[in-house]
Amino acid sequence: MAARRDVLVVLCDEHKPPGMGRVESLVEVRYADRNDLAAALQGADALFVWDFFSAALREAWPAADRLRWIHIASAGVDRLLFPQLVDSPVVVTNSRGVFDRPIAEYVLGLVLAVAKDLPSTLALQHERVWRHRESRLIEGRRALVVGTGSIGRAIGRLLRATGMEVSAVGRAARDADPDLGTIHAAGDLHELLPTADYVVIAAPLTESTRGWFDSAAFAAMRADAWLVNIGRGPIVVEPDLIQALRAGRLAGAALDVFAEEPLPPHHPFWGMANVIVSPHMSGDVVGWHDALADLFLDNLTRWLAGQSLDNQVDKSAGYVPSR
Amino acid sequence: MAARRDVLVVLCDEHKPPGMGRVESLVEVRYADRNDLAAALQGADALFVWDFFSAALREAWPAADRLRWIHIASAGVDRLLFPQLVDSPVVVTNSRGVFDRPIAEYVLGLVLAVAKDLPSTLALQHERVWRHRESRLIEGRRALVVGTGSIGRAIGRLLRATGMEVSAVGRAARDADPDLGTIHAAGDLHELLPTADYVVIAAPLTESTRGWFDSAAFAAMRADAWLVNIGRGPIVVEPDLIQALRAGRLAGAALDVFAEEPLPPHHPFWGMANVIVSPHMSGDVVGWHDALADLFLDNLTRWLAGQSLDNQVDKSAGYVPSR
Repeated sequence: MAARRDVLVVLCDEHKPPGMGRVESLVEVRYADRNDLAAALQGADALFVWDFFSAALREAWPAADRLRWIHIASAGVDRLLFPQLVDSPVVVTNSRGVFDRPIAEYVLGLVLAVAKDLPSTLALQHERVWRHRESRLIEGRRALVVGTGSIGRAIGRLLRATGMEVSAVGRAARDADPDLGTIHAAGDLHELLPTADYVVIAAPLTESTRGWFDSAAFAAMRADAWLVNIGRGPIVVEPDLIQALRAGRLAGAALDVFAEEPLPPHHPFWGMANVIVSPHMSGDVVGWHDALADLFLDNLTRWLAGQSLDNQVDKSAGYVPSR
Repeated sequence: MAARRDVLVVLCDEHKPPGMGRVESLVEVRYADRNDLAAALQGADALFVWDFFSAALREAWPAADRLRWIHIASAGVDRLLFPQLVDSPVVVTNSRGVFDRPIAEYVLGLVLAVAKDLPSTLALQHERVWRHRESRLIEGRRALVVGTGSIGRAIGRLLRATGMEVSAVGRAARDADPDLGTIHAAGDLHELLPTADYVVIAAPLTESTRGWFDSAAFAAMRADAWLVNIGRGPIVVEPDLIQALRAGRLAGAALDVFAEEPLPPHHPFWGMANVIVSPHMSGDVVGWHDALADLFLDNLTRWLAGQSLDNQVDKSAGYVPSR
């Protein structure tokens, strides 16, 4: 009788991850959607969360009788974690790295779109109106990157490469960081906000960052500054942001993430002239599915060989600690 | 009796250049608009063309009885030059340098807007539609910069700093240029076009470049490539571009300059989904008027001291030769 093969559950909708043939040659694979996850988890050793916006695991958790490892096809783990999982010995790994460069480029694109007044240009084109305007340089302008994980670092590197002045806010202060310049402690955020032309939220959603950007934070920003959020929606108190934008406390906001996604059709953000709404796409470039699947296969190979896994999440903190 | 002061004509509309107090302390200044230019030029030693879109000089030329120097507040001199001026001993200087960094940033902004599909994002926002899409990386993508003057060089430097692969087309081939990588000879354009994801026209309008981008050039481009033109409109044969865009021979065009400016309201470009129209603003950042006036004052000081002028235009070629 053959030895029992490890059992992997892949949580996905009708679209399976690419390249599963190789995975199926290594382990027994059960595909499950949100509804049949509990049944699939019985006797399963590992879980690959491909449908990374799903919070189905919490409900199915009692069925996970021998689960040892969960890998998620996203950078943020906020939707995945819940107290029983945090307290359990189950190892969680994420897809740190895959989104770094795509998101950094997306942020630079937003910063330049704002500086060059591209939204107005496109709106005027729609009306066939030729209206010359003066735009702004980004060279020498100050960006404050909030979050010093691998995505924040990639943003810092790229913005610095274009001649912007970058500083950052992270857990621990540090001078002369190669990617981010001076890193300030999280507690200094409100002192730093007035220095920034562009404030970029690239932090994970944790209990420490939830609601961090509230009316007090927006009051500290400059009236000509823009907020860019590619982190997670609940880091921003949306009603406070709407009020601050309407009061002119900051110039505008480019938002890729929201408290509720998809952003509901009636939400005020859609119609605000100084808000750019994008549908949580900043990290998703052509080929991202392949990159996510490759990263999982690498970790699966390590796991089967008994090696230590890449991108292990500190479940209490809610992110992968910086190396 | 006091010595005769040099006479400077400033060609402008109702908006004079900033900082003219200093200039007026150095020379006798006559302000003229397009209509009274001829009268003002009689007995004038120098001309500062602040209204740089004006072609009024050609008509007023017979009145220029002692003109020795013309300075223009633009980079391109195509609207200024005409055969009698080219053949005359009058020295022409331009505003090379002022627009380099602003235009480079503008081009990067357009490239990122295209790669990240920002025009669609803004259009979908207008309709309150959440539609996730995959975007493209610019890292490793190839930009072909057409024109190796100071603007083309600034574009090359900035695009390379963001991780793009840059090559260029200029008058003379050259390997390993620090700004532009490999510079290919102008005659090789059609061989290079198929290699480029983004083709950026940053050339001056001369008899050599007029109509350079025609149906044959567009046929050589890749179907997924974009054209960016921040040079001069007539370098592109617009009917050919419209036909090529409609036929899908290239993916799109971001145009800041046109054969006729302002672009007429009935022009097809306004309404084409794969065209971005902007109103000849790529170089015009907040403070540009001051920068142009400062640059003129520097040259005026040199001129009065009998020193050699900066930014001397090769009138036969139609641009300032690279240093």
